[in-house]
Amino acid sequence: MSKQTSSVFSVDVTGLDGAEGQPTYIRICDRIRSAITGGALVPNARLPSSRTLAKDFGVARNTVDEALSQLVADGYVIRRRGAGTFVATHLPERDSPPVRTKRAAPARPVAEERRLSVRARELASYPGQYRPQIAIPFTPSLPPVDLFPRSIWNRLLNREAARAGNDYWAYGASNGLPALREAIAAHASALRATRCAPDQVIVVTSTQQAVELAAKVIANPGDSAWVETPGYQPAQHCLRAAGLRVIPVPVDEQGIVVRTGRELEGRARLAYVTPAHQYPLGYEMSLPRRQELLDWALQSDAYVIEDDYDGDYRYEGRPIASLQGIDASGRVIYVGSFNKILFPGLRIAYAIVPRPLVGAFVDAKHVADGHTMTLTQGVLAAFITEGHLARHLRKTRTIYDERRRAFLEEARVLAPVLDLGPARAGMHVTGLFKAGGRKRLNDAAVAAECCRAGVNVHPLSKYGAVDRGGLVFGFAGASREASRRGLEVVRRVLMNN
Amino acid sequence: MSKQTSSVFSVDVTGLDGAEGQPTYIRICDRIRSAITGGALVPNARLPSSRTLAKDFGVARNTVDEALSQLVADGYVIRRRGAGTFVATHLPERDSPPVRTKRAAPARPVAEERRLSVRARELASYPGQYRPQIAIPFTPSLPPVDLFPRSIWNRLLNREAARAGNDYWAYGASNGLPALREAIAAHASALRATRCAPDQVIVVTSTQQAVELAAKVIANPGDSAWVETPGYQPAQHCLRAAGLRVIPVPVDEQGIVVRTGRELEGRARLAYVTPAHQYPLGYEMSLPRRQELLDWALQSDAYVIEDDYDGDYRYEGRPIASLQGIDASGRVIYVGSFNKILFPGLRIAYAIVPRPLVGAFVDAKHVADGHTMTLTQGVLAAFITEGHLARHLRKTRTIYDERRRAFLEEARVLAPVLDLGPARAGMHVTGLFKAGGRKRLNDAAVAAECCRAGVNVHPLSKYGAVDRGGLVFGFAGASREASRRGLEVVRRVLMNN
Repeated sequence: MSKQTSSVFSVDVTGLDGAEGQPTYIRICDRIRSAITGGALVPNARLPSSRTLAKDFGVARNTVDEALSQLVADGYVIRRRGAGTFVATHLPERDSPPVRTKRAAPARPVAEERRLSVRARELASYPGQYRPQIAIPFTPSLPPVDLFPRSIWNRLLNREAARAGNDYWAYGASNGLPALREAIAAHASALRATRCAPDQVIVVTSTQQAVELAAKVIANPGDSAWVETPGYQPAQHCLRAAGLRVIPVPVDEQGIVVRTGRELEGRARLAYVTPAHQYPLGYEMSLPRRQELLDWALQSDAYVIEDDYDGDYRYEGRPIASLQGIDASGRVIYVGSFNKILFPGLRIAYAIVPRPLVGAFVDAKHVADGHTMTLTQGVLAAFITEGHLARHLRKTRTIYDERRRAFLEEARVLAPVLDLGPARAGMHVTGLFKAGGRKRLNDAAVAAECCRAGVNVHPLSKYGAVDRGGLVFGFAGASREASRRGLEVVRRVLMNN
Repeated sequence: MSKQTSSVFSVDVTGLDGAEGQPTYIRICDRIRSAITGGALVPNARLPSSRTLAKDFGVARNTVDEALSQLVADGYVIRRRGAGTFVATHLPERDSPPVRTKRAAPARPVAEERRLSVRARELASYPGQYRPQIAIPFTPSLPPVDLFPRSIWNRLLNREAARAGNDYWAYGASNGLPALREAIAAHASALRATRCAPDQVIVVTSTQQAVELAAKVIANPGDSAWVETPGYQPAQHCLRAAGLRVIPVPVDEQGIVVRTGRELEGRARLAYVTPAHQYPLGYEMSLPRRQELLDWALQSDAYVIEDDYDGDYRYEGRPIASLQGIDASGRVIYVGSFNKILFPGLRIAYAIVPRPLVGAFVDAKHVADGHTMTLTQGVLAAFITEGHLARHLRKTRTIYDERRRAFLEEARVLAPVLDLGPARAGMHVTGLFKAGGRKRLNDAAVAAECCRAGVNVHPLSKYGAVDRGGLVFGFAGASREASRRGLEVVRRVLMNN
């Protein structure tokens, strides 16, 4: 069967023939159930017709009907006469995701709540754990994993795993495999103009881990941290988890408004920013603003965490050097992640740390989880040094750029209601609801309705308090056709709201 | 089997065949143990003959004998020659309410080093990061990675990596791959008599991560945690990193001295213990002490973190059931690690969490680092379900046992200066310097000198304040010849000190 994704819908139909020895309808059943329990198909979402599903799965229609009957019997979907088949509102207890999703009201008994720490209760207010996501338009920050050259990766994996010696099997260094730290230092300095030696690179699992470790090393509980508003919420959760007070600082076209930050809390211990491509508004921090931020950090003995999550993707103009690269005073902790540019299941990111902080950072990583898996680090080191990373970036840059152009063209249908922000870089674009429209739109309600119709846009309000509502679109995963159909859904929802 | 009650006795033998996939003797064991801990079988009660029990349970007599041997080893029953088998007399006392003690003011560091946080300076006082270790006698806790069946692992790795679909490439669930959580639940219940469903299993990177997440979920900064003294230092660092006050509680032959813990800080929020094989002294926590600890936890609304780091290795008697398995009140967080029994570079461990804590635990894992690498989880799941873990444990148990015996024989040369502790389980043994020797030996100096001579013994003082110095030997990695040579080095160093 060819690799494809069910039209409009989010049931990934790839590799159905990979399962062992089960009847086809059971495999289809499993696939749809996983999409439901994984959260990709939300309650009340309408499934495509059995004819469409049969075509997508490449099977006879009665096989799909058999699978749907099974799912009805199991309570995962319901049939509404004349209306179609829908994901059940209440999923069966047995197979519902092990953790309640945050969207449903948590049903924790009060006594149990009391057993949890303040931190745990704070964590419970966050949007929730990762659920396996499959590619539907327009999930932001989800790289299209089908573009990743798995066969090359797997070849390197096999080769590295077969290597003699115990490097990949015994305990590894907490700061990471030397070969990978060297590869990262070279990559980041070539592409992002960072200035560092390999001993300043610390390999971690994810941006989140880097932010939490940085916060622990730099700040004491109760210290303050500036964050961009709107901004990347998971990073803020990490800062809070480390005991910090989070100070929301507004963002303008030049980036975080340092002046306002100084007014709100000049003595903050750190600032978390996304200078290359502000998340989610898409602005690039201007050079004067960068200097202003660095000046503040130096004067206040504070640090800047630079999250360069999509700095490798820029389609217009020349990439601005990283903040780390223009920092002469050692105030910047640069964070990069391969989970966003290769594949999310990888779990390798890194921090580039001012030399005086290196020892403490490595200690913190050691205490947090020992070290990151060594074999995977070895494979990634080979992937980088043998040129595959550069090739993959070139390839995806071209494809994302095509998709970006297609998205922007197709998005003209939204021009009457939405002001699209800058889209010169990265993998997403944010549209603000037009000011002075006939009524104030609720972006969360709009996004939820889009989601039920199989289009995953994020409401801007999810990223912190904002004056105007809006929607965040990830364009990197959507073909022109998917963009067109997805945007048509969004247009329809906006018209009806 | 028909519903019946064992004659004379109150062991309900109904539905023995209802349990999933466990050996029959384990199920019989569980049944009798529940009757004892549930109070149906009172202390000193005489059990029916194994012939009668065999008839009642409808199994062969040697199966019952196997179960009874297990119960003897676990300390639930005792055999009296010529008189029969009895419920142990030593049942836990019903304790008085927790003793209140005044909390000491938290220690504040005197020197304020400007750039690092208090936490970072605290971290800097720890022994330091993992450095790649090579297998020299007698590094404790370092599994000999040359015994690991790499070719099998690599075959599974290649197979899983080549699987179609995006499960291994996209974001995964924060609590871990469902297939792995199921495999872990089955493994832990079969080998360690834990009682849990797969949704209570949370996949993490390492024991350290499990301990830090547990501490975050259970405790607020400033809360207290009991730790064993001497005890496993990295776990204590994790507790401190989570902002907890660590209360060192002494250990005797029965395990952590709960009575002293109550006196020192009865209102501690958690206790971190190693019941199967106290690290480093090697004692197995007795059943009464286990019950006493669980009683304390229940009374004090506290939790017990059970680190079962080498519970799979037992050479004399049979493995004692985990604390988690006898905890009827949901007070135990069980932690197991594959890094110790497979290979350290793997970076997969797990926690089994009381159901009311599951949601918060997953939230904490999500914020800490998203999730653990999915492909590796898939490979491990296959390794377990296809029987390779069980085979590897059988193989290494035999080899470690041979090495243990060889070590103990060769260690007779140290008898004049060293009292070896129990070595019935695990991968290490601790020797205490003989009391009343000609002078007081400095174990750190002795260990350092041994290390310079190529023999890596750890000084007991490294594990916390102790009355007598001593040395910790890992025997699992040393052949008889290596043990002989290594012990000769130690003997020479001890003679010269």
